[in-house]
Parts: sequence; C-alpha cells; structure tokens
Amino acid sequence: MQQQLRCSRVASSRITPRTRTSMVVMASAKPKLQLMVNSCTGKMGQAVAEAALRAGVELVPYTLCGPADVATNATVNVAGHALTLVPPSTRDAVVEELKGRYPHLLMVDYTLPDAIHSMVDFYVKHRTPFVMGTTGGDRAKIAAQVEASKVYAVIAPNMGKQIVAFQATMDLMAKSFPGAFSGYKLRVVESHQSTKKDTSGTAKAVVQSFVELGVPFDVSQIELVREPKAQMEVMKVPADAINGHAYHTYQLVSGDGTVMFEFQHNVIGRTTYAEGTVDAALFLAGRIDANDDKTLYNMIDVLRAGAMR
Amino acid sequence: MQQQLRCSRVASSRITPRTRTSMVVMASAKPKLQLMVNSCTGKMGQAVAEAALRAGVELVPYTLCGPADVATNATVNVAGHALTLVPPSTRDAVVEELKGRYPHLLMVDYTLPDAIHSMVDFYVKHRTPFVMGTTGGDRAKIAAQVEASKVYAVIAPNMGKQIVAFQATMDLMAKSFPGAFSGYKLRVVESHQSTKKDTSGTAKAVVQSFVELGVPFDVSQIELVREPKAQMEVMKVPADAINGHAYHTYQLVSGDGTVMFEFQHNVIGRTTYAEGTVDAALFLAGRIDANDDKTLYNMIDVLRAGAMR
Repeated sequence: MQQQLRCSRVASSRITPRTRTSMVVMASAKPKLQLMVNSCTGKMGQAVAEAALRAGVELVPYTLCGPADVATNATVNVAGHALTLVPPSTRDAVVEELKGRYPHLLMVDYTLPDAIHSMVDFYVKHRTPFVMGTTGGDRAKIAAQVEASKVYAVIAPNMGKQIVAFQATMDLMAKSFPGAFSGYKLRVVESHQSTKKDTSGTAKAVVQSFVELGVPFDVSQIELVREPKAQMEVMKVPADAINGHAYHTYQLVSGDGTVMFEFQHNVIGRTTYAEGTVDAALFLAGRIDANDDKTLYNMIDVLRAGAMR
Repeated sequence: MQQQLRCSRVASSRITPRTRTSMVVMASAKPKLQLMVNSCTGKMGQAVAEAALRAGVELVPYTLCGPADVATNATVNVAGHALTLVPPSTRDAVVEELKGRYPHLLMVDYTLPDAIHSMVDFYVKHRTPFVMGTTGGDRAKIAAQVEASKVYAVIAPNMGKQIVAFQATMDLMAKSFPGAFSGYKLRVVESHQSTKKDTSGTAKAVVQSFVELGVPFDVSQIELVREPKAQMEVMKVPADAINGHAYHTYQLVSGDGTVMFEFQHNVIGRTTYAEGTVDAALFLAGRIDANDDKTLYNMIDVLRAGAMR
C-alpha cells in the first residue's frame, strides 16, 4: 500500500522529498506507552501495529481476536514480531495479567461494528485506556458510557488526521462565512473500492458545510464511482489501488461560470489511518501522563494538540 | 467575460443552473445607497458599474478620471448609461455639489497604485464613504488615516468574496490545527495573464498558512505560468481568457505518496471582483444606515455579515 498517487495536473515537484517526522517528534517527547493492538488478524489492526513499530512505539506481543482465529493459529506475525492471539474465552484473565506486566498499557481497537459494544464494555471493565477506530454501534451511548467511566479514550470513526482537519476546516468556513458561496453550483464525486456500498460519510459531512455556505445540495446528489474502469479512467485511481482507496472531489462553479473552486482528497490504502491511530495513541498517553481531567477525546482534539509539538 | 470554465475532471453537472441571488437578497433589504464608481474609464471601474446596474443599485452618472481622459471625451458609456467625466481640476467642486444631490453617496475606487494616497486624501477631505479596491501605497498609513477620520470605508486588495473566504479559511485551519500536514510536500502553481510580472499575492498568503500547517515552503518556490501555450495546455485556461485570468493550484502530497490533497481556485475575467465590490458597497451602506461605531472594514467583515442575510 505504498503506491504513489499519480497526479494528473502537477505531476512533478521541485521539492526534495522528506520523510514523515511528526510522530518521531511526538515520540521524542516520550509519553509512557505500551501499545496493544487488538484485531491484528485484521488488515487495519495489522497496519496500525506496523505503524507503531515504524514510530518506535513499544508493541505488546498479544492481540485480542475472535474464537475462529485461534482454531488455526496461536500467533499472528507483524513485521517479524509474533503476537500471541487471545480469544474471548481467556481475554479477561490475560488482560489483568498484562496490566501488571505493562503499567502503561493502552489498546487500539479496529474490530467489527457488531462487536463494538462488547469491546467498549471490555475496556471499561478492565479500565484500560483505548483508541477506538471501529465504526457502527450506538455512538451516543458509547460516548456517554466511556465518559462516565473516566477511562481515557480517543473515539473517532475516521483516524485520517489531515482528512479530519479538512472536514473540520470546511465546517469552520461555513460557520465563519455563511452564504459565502450563494449562487454557486456544487458537484461531488467520490470513488471507493466496489465493496463499499454506501455513500462516503466524509463526503456527506463536507456537503453539509457547503449547504451552510449557500449551495443547495442533497447528499443523494453525491456521485458514487464503484466501477474499476471509471475509477482508473475518470478518477485516475492507480490500477493497484482499485481494492483500497478513497477519492473525493468537490467542485463549486459560480452562476455565470467564471469562477471555479475544486477541493480533492485522495487516499490510497490504510497507511494514513494507521499513522493517525498511532498519533492518537501517543496523544492519549500524553494526556494520561498529564493526569488530565478530561478523559474522552476525538481526532479534533488530537489535531489541536499539534500546537504542543 | 462570461466564458464558461472548462473543468477537466468533472465536466458535466446534474444540478440545475441557478442565477446569483446573494446581491438581490442584500439589495432587497434596501440600504440607502447612491453609488458613484470612479475610474469608469478603466476596465475594473467599468465592470463594477455594470455589476451595480445588474444588482439594481442606483448609479450616480459621474465618474472621476485622469486629466488625459477629458482631453478626448466628456462622458464614458456604461451599459447604455452616459457618465460625465470629472477631471482633477474640477472634482472638489463637483463632489461637494453631488453630496447635496445624492445624500447617500458612496464611492468606489479602482484607480492606480500611484494615485492611491491622493484618492484616500480626497475621500477623507470630502467625507464621502468609499470602497477601495486599489492596491499599492502604504497600507498601514492608509488604514490609520481612514480609521482616524471616521469616514466609513471598506478597504481590501482583493474583492473576490469567495477567494477571500478561501484564503481566510486556510488561515483558520493553520491556527486551529498547527502542524497537521507535517511531513507533506507542497507544490503551488499559479497562472495569470503575461502582463502580471509578480507572484500572486493570494498564493503567497495561502502558502503562509501551509507553512504553519507544517509544510516547509518558500514563496520563491511558487511556480508562475505566464506563457499562453502552457496556460492553455497545462493549466486548461480557455483561449479567450489568456489576457485575463487567475488560476491557482495547491497540491499537498504525504511523505509516502499515499495521500494527496489538491485545492484549486480558477477565475476568469473581472466579474467576481466587480460583484464582490458591489456586495462591499451594499454592506457599507447598511453599516452607515445602522450608524455603526466601527467605520473601517475589510472583505472578511463583508463575508462575516453573510450571517445577516
């Protein structure tokens, strides 16, 4: 999942490439953190564990899994590290033992929507701080339960920091300059892998901001691209990213056609979400170190904390 | 100047075109306004006068001009309306007389950078409220002088409302989420008519926000496109807009190349700036009606006032 985006208009760059430094900077502040990534049998858990290792974070060699996983294997491999699979039948005992061995234990969860309530119950019961990227469930109920428990947590349905920043920024624009795009026409196109049947939640949230900016538009007008041929030819998705991408284009054109604004955010694979999850874990470890009165956070909180770097 | 932008990626739209309504809405609130547009011998003044007529604003049939203009003509034509040219030699007497005939007189200025200080002196001396779109001069000195005079004014180097909103929004993002794009590479390309020799001021302002967002970049790295061939082939500027356009593309790519953000704002001709100027004049007339304590405004104030519509 390290493909280069092919950018049709501005294809080359004068700027010398540089590697991502933000996590390294945060890690150098050394919040005490021992990270246990659950569901490492899944692709997202695997990606987060790999991102944690790249960031120099201590990875706890255990991972919660489903009963079916342990029927075939006792461990899962992450970048050469064997993690012991912990099924539901033993997880309560194992986690209590791990809390003793890893005093700065923090968990990451990317289980399935169906499991989200039982996982939240589990983290609250054992009072293990956690970062929850899993979607679904009764979000208001989960937030209320976690907040009341005072267990430290970051809960966010999208861990892509820059995408969350963009979405929040469009909301800031709408709140600051209501009606500024009055008289404009909007077109929204999003492309995702064909297994995604519903409309992009990010696109729906951004459209709401454009409506507040004065543009009449209904989320049903968002155009969904799910056919590989159109994804490659129209959206310029690389062939090897057809099964894992999130491309969004928002285009605003003035009534007389003389002004055009276009916003795009195109993501390939899981790397950015995995890195954002590790950023969230480092942020939460810092909040625990600081013994913060506030215990429940989202990605906006993680982004705002950028000021501390 | 009514060319349609040709949008390469999303070329058609499901949305029914609708005309621009914001000015009509503002005009329906009927602030008392009699608009005198100076420099109607120039292209920008002409465009503003036309936009005022389209918005149903009363146009005062006089316009300040340079001495050379009156050597050849006594009037200038704006959409069938003859405006009497007023040279510097008679302008003091004429304006005092017009103030009596037009109690809600408000002036718009798009003269030359060289003339800006003498024009500001003129408006302050006669205490005529004004909207100043002229660039250049000592901006701090002008602001201090106008503020001290308590003459009502909107002063802004860019009257394109949506462009100003975009620029302010990038600043909001930088202030809210500093460092959020740490590790990203930036590329900025701007295309303007070949007569524009310097780098786009808007691009320079937006780049400053990206720097605060964690992207190392110097304004000298902004790529200027001034050759018609490249403008048409690379930037997709329509052939008939080569002599009057402002195209900007900002592209952010993550260190590993899996995430790309792109922001574009492409303007053809002067219509959007002319309409923004009329919006500013309507806004200022409303502030005068309200006898507001604050007297000096910029386009951000005009945009924020959108909340009142």
